Amino acid sequence: MEIIMCPGFEAAGIAAGLKKKEKKDLGLIFSKVPATAAAGVFTRNLVKAAPVILDTKRIKEGICRAVIVNSGNANCCTGEQGIRDAETMAALSATELGISEDQVLVASTGVIGEPMPMEKIESAIPRLVKSLRPEGIPDLARSIMTTDTVPKMISEQGVVDGKTFTVTGVAKGAGMIRPNMATMLCFLCTDVSVSPVILKEILTKAVNRSFNRITIDGDTSTNDMVLMMANGLSGVVLQQSAHKDVFQKTLDSILLDLSKQLVRDGEGVTKLVEIIVRGAFSNADAERIADTVAHSPLVKTAFFGEDANWGRIMGAVGRAGIDVDPDGIDLYFDDIQMVKSGVGCGKAVEAEAAEVLKKPEFAVTIDLNLGQGFGSMITCDFSVDYVRINADYRS
Amino acid sequence: MEIIMCPGFEAAGIAAGLKKKEKKDLGLIFSKVPATAAAGVFTRNLVKAAPVILDTKRIKEGICRAVIVNSGNANCCTGEQGIRDAETMAALSATELGISEDQVLVASTGVIGEPMPMEKIESAIPRLVKSLRPEGIPDLARSIMTTDTVPKMISEQGVVDGKTFTVTGVAKGAGMIRPNMATMLCFLCTDVSVSPVILKEILTKAVNRSFNRITIDGDTSTNDMVLMMANGLSGVVLQQSAHKDVFQKTLDSILLDLSKQLVRDGEGVTKLVEIIVRGAFSNADAERIADTVAHSPLVKTAFFGEDANWGRIMGAVGRAGIDVDPDGIDLYFDDIQMVKSGVGCGKAVEAEAAEVLKKPEFAVTIDLNLGQGFGSMITCDFSVDYVRINADYRS
Repeated sequence: MEIIMCPGFEAAGIAAGLKKKEKKDLGLIFSKVPATAAAGVFTRNLVKAAPVILDTKRIKEGICRAVIVNSGNANCCTGEQGIRDAETMAALSATELGISEDQVLVASTGVIGEPMPMEKIESAIPRLVKSLRPEGIPDLARSIMTTDTVPKMISEQGVVDGKTFTVTGVAKGAGMIRPNMATMLCFLCTDVSVSPVILKEILTKAVNRSFNRITIDGDTSTNDMVLMMANGLSGVVLQQSAHKDVFQKTLDSILLDLSKQLVRDGEGVTKLVEIIVRGAFSNADAERIADTVAHSPLVKTAFFGEDANWGRIMGAVGRAGIDVDPDGIDLYFDDIQMVKSGVGCGKAVEAEAAEVLKKPEFAVTIDLNLGQGFGSMITCDFSVDYVRINADYRS
Repeated sequence: MEIIMCPGFEAAGIAAGLKKKEKKDLGLIFSKVPATAAAGVFTRNLVKAAPVILDTKRIKEGICRAVIVNSGNANCCTGEQGIRDAETMAALSATELGISEDQVLVASTGVIGEPMPMEKIESAIPRLVKSLRPEGIPDLARSIMTTDTVPKMISEQGVVDGKTFTVTGVAKGAGMIRPNMATMLCFLCTDVSVSPVILKEILTKAVNRSFNRITIDGDTSTNDMVLMMANGLSGVVLQQSAHKDVFQKTLDSILLDLSKQLVRDGEGVTKLVEIIVRGAFSNADAERIADTVAHSPLVKTAFFGEDANWGRIMGAVGRAGIDVDPDGIDLYFDDIQMVKSGVGCGKAVEAEAAEVLKKPEFAVTIDLNLGQGFGSMITCDFSVDYVRINADYRS
């Protein structure tokens, strides 16, 4: 898939020596024209990395047009010095870019609790800014990778009133992925013209429909953020509902695609599984049950083992803290019914189920037969490699 | 440690062909004299196995004096037939024991959703009853094992008013272990004289202080139960507070010991770690944070890797949904301080911390410095073998 860079934006990614083996670890995205709006959605973890603290403030107070990001160090639990380091990263970038420092946002991902290697970063920033170019998106996508095995990027275009707009995005994920923003960075740029308030609304909705519906390991990171900048160059103005709807649809599609890219490349992941709960008393009930099933280590290890062990799914449904009638539950792997009214459908369906479990992507549907409530989550299996990757992460 | 069997009780465990390789899979414990009281604490999972449904009813209505238990099949999600099968197990045992069938409780553990192999069980019951003997506790402990690698049993004696009483117990655990009763069976017998109401009170307190404070993988099973029978033979009568206190202390000690045996033998476990949270606004806050840290896959894989990655612990504290001040947190591995006022103590302590992490048992203490609230959990690491065991469980 070819990536179309949104007009007016440039990106870069270079190796500054934060990671081993000359890997790219410092990135930048920049709007060459003043932006019309910027919006961000940040981790709900109370332990917040310095860049999250800085950006939350800046994005409220002004309109940012650049993001500098490093991988290899999270700049979290680093105290006052961490805040000063994030500010310095923004200030040096601003000087090189010739803009005001409060127009620069900062993002970091990596190990928590180690001081930022500021000498390396400071000496690399001039080179980083010089590397900016419209076709630099793949470099940026690589520079934010940690345990990701592939860079994640996407672009889509839409049409409003005969004018074409573009949305381009990069993301990183891999571990610590859970609803409410996980270690997950995502940077988006677009050329619509929109107010910061409306952009925030649209972005929040899209995040709730995508990144907040995926899980890899249930841990929420201290550094997560989705940042979006709009520069207005397309001439598309988002004010009328119908126009906002077109843009929302495009953004929803982009973020759902990036979300699935994150799960597929989750640490040690071999399966992507959608957990669908229907027939609940309410959507909230259905979502809670989907969340519990999606996080169950026993369910996830069974997926890894390609074992149609639906009993573990029933066990997770029953412990979700939601009032259900166990004798009313139907359960399916794709369209193979495994449980009818709370009772297993027997050995006859096991062979068909085994075929479903062998697929790289499938769905588990749990019908509670109680009401109209619906909820779903995208999860993955829990593999031997997940443990290996995370046991040795800092080594 | 030698096990003293509580006077008046007998136990047995035999191979009935439910498990592969001639392993013991059918057990029985029996009070030769009419019991004075029986009490049970059952899984809070809404998806309940047939024996849980049966026992909950029987224990309310009468005083039971025998428990028959099988491993290899959970008799869960087996519908009406499952209930009939559990009733049949009790009825056949009662006939052989010469007691009324409503005095027999039933327990099962194993795979969910498969029909009970009743022919095998029915034909084995006469042999099971004939095997009953006072020294049969180790056989019973073996007959309830699933992925457990060692049988778990314990006995303790106490003295009230110059009279000695005995408590003897067996348990199984290994996976699906989480507060609120996990797949975990525990059978206890004692020779005190006590009313069912008081026995239930004492047992519930002891469970809350032990089994409800441990976690292996966060999954709560459909089959868990702790059953206790008292036959009064010691002459010790539990009515006065001081006497109840002595007994409570003995039972607390027994259940805590069995709990630690369960965690140590958890699936793939190489480390037992106590998570201690202090200085919270309330005990409930502290318990919630301890629970979140104790269940974090990233924290648990770091323990497995013997990696002093305290950043992941800080991340888990921050996402626990409890109001904390990140800049006030101190964190210790045993007595090595890793974090002071939210900031890492630097590379200097890493070597000492590495020594702590190499130990098979250690504590993580998180001091929030906010108030007097205290809570703790006993957890374990998350290893490559946990995944292997659970991926292949039914194969």
